Amino acid sequence: MYSAPVDDIAFTLKHVAGLEDALSTGALGDLGEDLVDAILHEAGRFATAEVAPLAEIGDRQGAKLTDGKVTTPDGWADLYRRWAEAGWNSLTAPEEFGGQNLPHMLNVAALEMWNSGSMAFALAPTLTMGAVEALVAHGSDDLKRTYLPKLVSGEWTGTMNLTEPHAGSDLGVLKTRAERNGDGTYRIFGQKIFITWGEHDAADNIIHLVLARLPDAPAGTRGISLFLVPKFLPDDNGAPGSRNDLFCHSLEHKLGIHGSPTCTMIFGDGKFGEGKGALGWLIGEENKGLACMFTMMNNARLAVGMQGVAICEAATQKAIEYARERTQGKAPGWQGSGMSPIIEHPDIARTLLTMKALTQGSRAISFSCAHAIDMAHATEDARQRAHWQERAALLTPIAKSFSTDAGVDVASMGIQVHGGMGFIEETGAARYLRDARIAPIYEGTNGIQAIDLVLRKLPLSEGAQVRGFIAELREIAARTAASNRADLGETGRYLEASLGDLETATDWLLHRIKAGETETALAGATPYQRLFGLALTGAYLAKGALAAVDDGRGGHRAALCRFAAENLLAETVALKDRVISGAASLAAARTVLA
Amino acid sequence: MYSAPVDDIAFTLKHVAGLEDALSTGALGDLGEDLVDAILHEAGRFATAEVAPLAEIGDRQGAKLTDGKVTTPDGWADLYRRWAEAGWNSLTAPEEFGGQNLPHMLNVAALEMWNSGSMAFALAPTLTMGAVEALVAHGSDDLKRTYLPKLVSGEWTGTMNLTEPHAGSDLGVLKTRAERNGDGTYRIFGQKIFITWGEHDAADNIIHLVLARLPDAPAGTRGISLFLVPKFLPDDNGAPGSRNDLFCHSLEHKLGIHGSPTCTMIFGDGKFGEGKGALGWLIGEENKGLACMFTMMNNARLAVGMQGVAICEAATQKAIEYARERTQGKAPGWQGSGMSPIIEHPDIARTLLTMKALTQGSRAISFSCAHAIDMAHATEDARQRAHWQERAALLTPIAKSFSTDAGVDVASMGIQVHGGMGFIEETGAARYLRDARIAPIYEGTNGIQAIDLVLRKLPLSEGAQVRGFIAELREIAARTAASNRADLGETGRYLEASLGDLETATDWLLHRIKAGETETALAGATPYQRLFGLALTGAYLAKGALAAVDDGRGGHRAALCRFAAENLLAETVALKDRVISGAASLAAARTVLA
Repeated sequence: MYSAPVDDIAFTLKHVAGLEDALSTGALGDLGEDLVDAILHEAGRFATAEVAPLAEIGDRQGAKLTDGKVTTPDGWADLYRRWAEAGWNSLTAPEEFGGQNLPHMLNVAALEMWNSGSMAFALAPTLTMGAVEALVAHGSDDLKRTYLPKLVSGEWTGTMNLTEPHAGSDLGVLKTRAERNGDGTYRIFGQKIFITWGEHDAADNIIHLVLARLPDAPAGTRGISLFLVPKFLPDDNGAPGSRNDLFCHSLEHKLGIHGSPTCTMIFGDGKFGEGKGALGWLIGEENKGLACMFTMMNNARLAVGMQGVAICEAATQKAIEYARERTQGKAPGWQGSGMSPIIEHPDIARTLLTMKALTQGSRAISFSCAHAIDMAHATEDARQRAHWQERAALLTPIAKSFSTDAGVDVASMGIQVHGGMGFIEETGAARYLRDARIAPIYEGTNGIQAIDLVLRKLPLSEGAQVRGFIAELREIAARTAASNRADLGETGRYLEASLGDLETATDWLLHRIKAGETETALAGATPYQRLFGLALTGAYLAKGALAAVDDGRGGHRAALCRFAAENLLAETVALKDRVISGAASLAAARTVLA
Repeated sequence: MYSAPVDDIAFTLKHVAGLEDALSTGALGDLGEDLVDAILHEAGRFATAEVAPLAEIGDRQGAKLTDGKVTTPDGWADLYRRWAEAGWNSLTAPEEFGGQNLPHMLNVAALEMWNSGSMAFALAPTLTMGAVEALVAHGSDDLKRTYLPKLVSGEWTGTMNLTEPHAGSDLGVLKTRAERNGDGTYRIFGQKIFITWGEHDAADNIIHLVLARLPDAPAGTRGISLFLVPKFLPDDNGAPGSRNDLFCHSLEHKLGIHGSPTCTMIFGDGKFGEGKGALGWLIGEENKGLACMFTMMNNARLAVGMQGVAICEAATQKAIEYARERTQGKAPGWQGSGMSPIIEHPDIARTLLTMKALTQGSRAISFSCAHAIDMAHATEDARQRAHWQERAALLTPIAKSFSTDAGVDVASMGIQVHGGMGFIEETGAARYLRDARIAPIYEGTNGIQAIDLVLRKLPLSEGAQVRGFIAELREIAARTAASNRADLGETGRYLEASLGDLETATDWLLHRIKAGETETALAGATPYQRLFGLALTGAYLAKGALAAVDDGRGGHRAALCRFAAENLLAETVALKDRVISGAASLAAARTVLA
């Protein structure tokens, strides 16, 4: 059973991702290490003792739709209420609306733990937090006053209604329409699919954020507006009042995250209310809905990255536990009596160490992204602020894609370690793979993250942001090499080589982009994204190993860092090669697919 | 919907894996190309029109156990009977027992198609074919006469009863016991798990091959005997007579292959018969059961490799079909009106071409393995025979592991290409991943294949077999480079580099083995196995491209070959590095797992 790795998480936050510096320079106000530790420990306890035990029943029962009502798995509604009452929904929200105004770093650390406990469960608050962000950034004062306190507390939950059957990655073609009522309110008509926690029995009201098009809107993405459409219209006291004209038409039958209801939502077909459409309120300006949505999507992408980290951690724990207990054969050098635990076999050990390295790498990347977000919020200086915003923007696609790819790979390795038992559902290892498989897809497929990384993020400040970042990473490599530590083996050399590969590939891509050779640049986008993630994994593990000399786990961190450097980083040269040399053969091979 | 790629399969058999040479030299008797083509086309028709349409219902309904009886999904029992009546079960079996004495190459080609149609369905005959092989090689004349005609025709099916809860990869510790009756028969008592198609309603009798231990047997693997234990004891006319004392106690709830009943079998607990145990007959000699089992296991490993190839093919077809139809966004350079089909986006095209390359690579490796088996059977000359036996032995772990790893990876990529729809079960893409995930585990995990490859196969003929094989592959690379074909781009250079990596890693491993440094060698076994598979993929795709100039698809083969060389082969240098440099850090990092 999952046990939250609070010490590892705290170490990575503080010594790798920058929280210690931020605390000591006062960038995060009067937040102190004691409070950080207390929050992490309590989140770890809740995730371990309360969330994780309900994951299996959630997977087995799934969410059910009967007569328009969605029932969540046994115990989930109560679990959600206890979770919200404990204040976990409100960590980062503004104090003005009942939030705790804590850094994002703490929230993503907690998100990792909720998701390790149960990814399907953690999706509900993830969506609510997104809705809170959009409202805080773009909502009118009226909307904020009415909805934010309930959403911040978690009493009500939020959703994101983007996708339609023909409009997934390309939102420009969505058809849901909005009509002006003339009194500042709107009526929404249309169908949305894949709406996570779109309907359920765990909260008193559900606040839908819906992308729709006004009758006179320009075509494409510039004609999309964002609306707030509550399930129940708040009455004069702010309590859920009359039912709005929207409902859950059906639930998807999915590979994983069974406990999370994935709804097809119908707005304005007359099932409820006066048959005049679903009543909605504009968020932000008309036709500027996509920009509002992007506010929440960036953080949502990082939150999905945390799902990848979370699955990595949980699947790795489970596999290690099994490999210690299961005996089979005799490993080379085994001196014990009888069969050896399979963890003694080199191939199993290699697999488990790879799983651990990918877990720690994705965690460090994702926490560093959250740190950049916090610094952007905390910094007054405009230049510094822009720097941290760019850093967060650069890290977001890598955190999302590298962590979620790792989630799938690590969960698959976890099944393999379990042998035949891994294929049996009751073992629980297969659920991690089933759950993990959605994360590289939603909130922008990892292919789209790669496009974003190459076309939008690399060119930030004309390439100065990414180049400056690589220079920082090179300092870690130099310090590693200079440390001359025997327990780090060849880490310095491998890391320098990988960062060299990253730099070469980056320069090459920046030239292609400048020359307008978009197709050539995009041909290598996915290998480049992975190259970046691997190089960062090496750098952050080294940073941790250098910082950890005296914490008692220092030997372990160095050994894992060395393993990662000497086993995983050699791949970067191949990835660099694919970025630079792959495009011509890809173009030539298009005919094969015709 | 899956459509059997008969032309691709025929091309690979003939021009890459060696069938054309074998036909023209008469190594396969009077078998002619016309018959080969006719068989492949008819198998393709049956797999496409009869098997594939029943895959989804098989997955959805699964096999069900009620009152000791296992019901297969709707239509499956009838499908199985029609399949057997068409003669598909008997391709390679001896004519003496009703078989068609055709080469294994044809059978594995057909197996690919059955498995693409439905892997869960194809498992039934796969197990029967294994039982036939064991009986042909080791059964007494009486047993052969009684059982082979029914098993060869497919009227009865066969099973392999190896695994027990504590004895999976390590069969030496199994506890199922056999007692001598004194009349040459035996009584079997014990429990076996993970018995594929151990009980079902598609055949009149089920013949279990069971590993068990005699009371006076030596400990470990040298004390295991193999028994034939029929569900119904044949009566004097050879028809199923009285029920033997064995039954299916439960079915596993699995991630995939739902239509295939995975049974816990109980032998000799008195539920049926006189309570004196399940009646069994010895196959081969007492305490030599493992050797008998290995006869069927080698071919079973290749058959599992075909499952990997099959999933690759089916998942790739499905993804290409979707990517052609689904429109979203505008790809760079897109000139059409509206959104472009997603196949136009470079990242999707890259993914699909990678899927295609892995499919063709694993197919070529697996067919080459079957070719070696056929040549070993066909050759009179003892030295030649030993050569081909070694070649088959060398290729078997690579065919099994590379193809089944590819199956998982390609199925996962297939889901990714489908975006959100890939996560919805009704789409069908997720089933391929769920089914594929068992193949790297059963018939010896891929980690165990790697141990087999490094410790047993590389040292064959003191390394001469593997060195000779690499020399053959180097000839392909030299021919490729010498061809100077523009459409092959840098294939020659990449291929030569990869084969150099393979040679370096091979030499290094042979030295470690010779020096008795087993643990060091095993630390790199899995990366080495993948390195071998990738280098073979490059070599075989090049061989096909060189052979295909005039077949009308030559341009496509060259383009895919070039894509694979310039995008996938760069990984071999990293793998070589892991083989040679990974062991020290792995040993040092063991403490992390303690």
